[in-house]
Amino acid sequence: MKRRVTLKQIAKELEVSISTVSKALKNSEEISKDTKEKIQAFAKLYNYRPNNIALSLKNRKTKNIGVIIPDIVHHFFTTVFRGIEQYAGEKGYNVMICVSDESFEKEVLNMELLANGSIDGFIMSLSAETQEKNDYTHLNEVLKQGIPLVLFDRVSEEVLCDKVILNDEEIAYEAVEYMIHTGKRNIALITTEGYFNVSYDRAKGYQTALRKNGLDYNDALVLTLPYKSEDDTDIWNFFENNEIDAVLCVNEIFAIKCMDVVQRQGKKVPEDISFIGFTNGILSRYSTPKLTTVAQHGELMGETAARLLIDRIENDLEGNHKTEVISATIIHRESTIN
Amino acid sequence: MKRRVTLKQIAKELEVSISTVSKALKNSEEISKDTKEKIQAFAKLYNYRPNNIALSLKNRKTKNIGVIIPDIVHHFFTTVFRGIEQYAGEKGYNVMICVSDESFEKEVLNMELLANGSIDGFIMSLSAETQEKNDYTHLNEVLKQGIPLVLFDRVSEEVLCDKVILNDEEIAYEAVEYMIHTGKRNIALITTEGYFNVSYDRAKGYQTALRKNGLDYNDALVLTLPYKSEDDTDIWNFFENNEIDAVLCVNEIFAIKCMDVVQRQGKKVPEDISFIGFTNGILSRYSTPKLTTVAQHGELMGETAARLLIDRIENDLEGNHKTEVISATIIHRESTIN
Repeated sequence: MKRRVTLKQIAKELEVSISTVSKALKNSEEISKDTKEKIQAFAKLYNYRPNNIALSLKNRKTKNIGVIIPDIVHHFFTTVFRGIEQYAGEKGYNVMICVSDESFEKEVLNMELLANGSIDGFIMSLSAETQEKNDYTHLNEVLKQGIPLVLFDRVSEEVLCDKVILNDEEIAYEAVEYMIHTGKRNIALITTEGYFNVSYDRAKGYQTALRKNGLDYNDALVLTLPYKSEDDTDIWNFFENNEIDAVLCVNEIFAIKCMDVVQRQGKKVPEDISFIGFTNGILSRYSTPKLTTVAQHGELMGETAARLLIDRIENDLEGNHKTEVISATIIHRESTIN
Repeated sequence: MKRRVTLKQIAKELEVSISTVSKALKNSEEISKDTKEKIQAFAKLYNYRPNNIALSLKNRKTKNIGVIIPDIVHHFFTTVFRGIEQYAGEKGYNVMICVSDESFEKEVLNMELLANGSIDGFIMSLSAETQEKNDYTHLNEVLKQGIPLVLFDRVSEEVLCDKVILNDEEIAYEAVEYMIHTGKRNIALITTEGYFNVSYDRAKGYQTALRKNGLDYNDALVLTLPYKSEDDTDIWNFFENNEIDAVLCVNEIFAIKCMDVVQRQGKKVPEDISFIGFTNGILSRYSTPKLTTVAQHGELMGETAARLLIDRIENDLEGNHKTEVISATIIHRESTIN
């Protein structure tokens, strides 16, 4: 397959902005005659054809939405997707998903792939690697082309678009304070490796709750775990070597694993150690004891993202980006003291 | 958007087969001059343009694969997807998914949507409603157009294509026989509503195991549950009103729910009642007691499906369809007697 020259390449070659190239190719009056001729000649020489994205957007609505999530074997993301699909379905839109698998490169490829499949807009949650690299060129380019984008949960300040986030800091604060009020003093945080805005916000809430309640923040009580690991050694040692009477975990699976470990160490949940997790999945409802957890209302988050996107698509809205905050709820079960 | 006439409509209107239309439009020598002229004139009159599917397939490989699964909040399907993606990724293919949500109509829409997004082939598991309706026109049409399709898990004999299935009947037989050998006699089956080939095969294995071991099949010991239900009343009554000392459940979540109910009724697992489920998900590993379950090797199933599809795409294979059978394994944990 012969590679066509892209808007970006033309812009780079001629040292002008992508939007200048785009406008010149549309013969816009905003661009000077000289510049237009230069760009149009170059585009012709290198066989430029506007890509499907731009074409489909200018000419007609496709009624398709592209969704990119970091992981598919993950309760939270799949419930968000369900929310997106329900809302989109009611409005007559189809939804396609790609999975970035936490990889920057795959996220970029996915965006290209979906864009070529003619979609009206994107709903995305950033991959771990994208947040780590802090490189959002692929997102900003799509936005420059006039394709609406809504980010949810894992978002970045460097991308100007509609966003749907959880009140992560606030709910982490509330969870920790709840455990303090039940008499707990040595409260640990179990979190993910990496550069997620959500983990950062939850850690901030955890620290603020300690400080406001006159407790010291202790580095030793923060355990960072790899996202996927079958090995429990780190968890075992963490609870063996530290005096801990309560734990906030940034996800459900960490909480379930830790409860399993401490119970094997002969400790009682919640009497000796309380646990609160994030993600109100099926695991939380059927664990022993049943897990107190932060419900992130994934379906509502998905619905909200779809509503923002479809609104923008159907009303050709530009600028004026909104960030909607979903209020999490703590679901009280057996792993905390009442 | 103006609807273009399709191959199918031309074929119907002129009372010829779709492949005749297709060949005529390509000026094939197999088709008589008269027929060709008639078809070509008709196509021109009604503004026929070959659709993206056919175009992309004939002209070049897109290196994209379309996947349609019935449900996304489902451990088994997401692990199959992961297997597809891993294999496809290694071979340089991108993967797009759509979710049919167990609906026939959505499955048909998804197929159209993905096909328009230019893919080289499909990997699918049939929706509940498609199996219930027993209508596979949309699949057979895609196959007629020369687009390779691989079905996994939920398949149909009425679609001639590559398939990847589990040895469901055999492994259900093995699971039931295992419980009989540990002294159980009143063995229940908890299964899904609907028309799934997999549920049918598992029920067959269950019945055969009873018969071959001299036990009577008893209708009253088969409980059919809706796929998604928060209500435990049926489960509660089933175990209250029947003498049951072992249970085979066709999925993990039914098993976890039932174990929860019988333990609340004061029965001991596995001493009073043994449980074996299907789907070796995370629930099985962290339930109390930990669930003995049939590992369906979803990733292997996904890899196998992707291998069959990519093989067919890259070697332009036709006919000679294969069915590969994945051998399930029983993972012994605490919910059965050793």
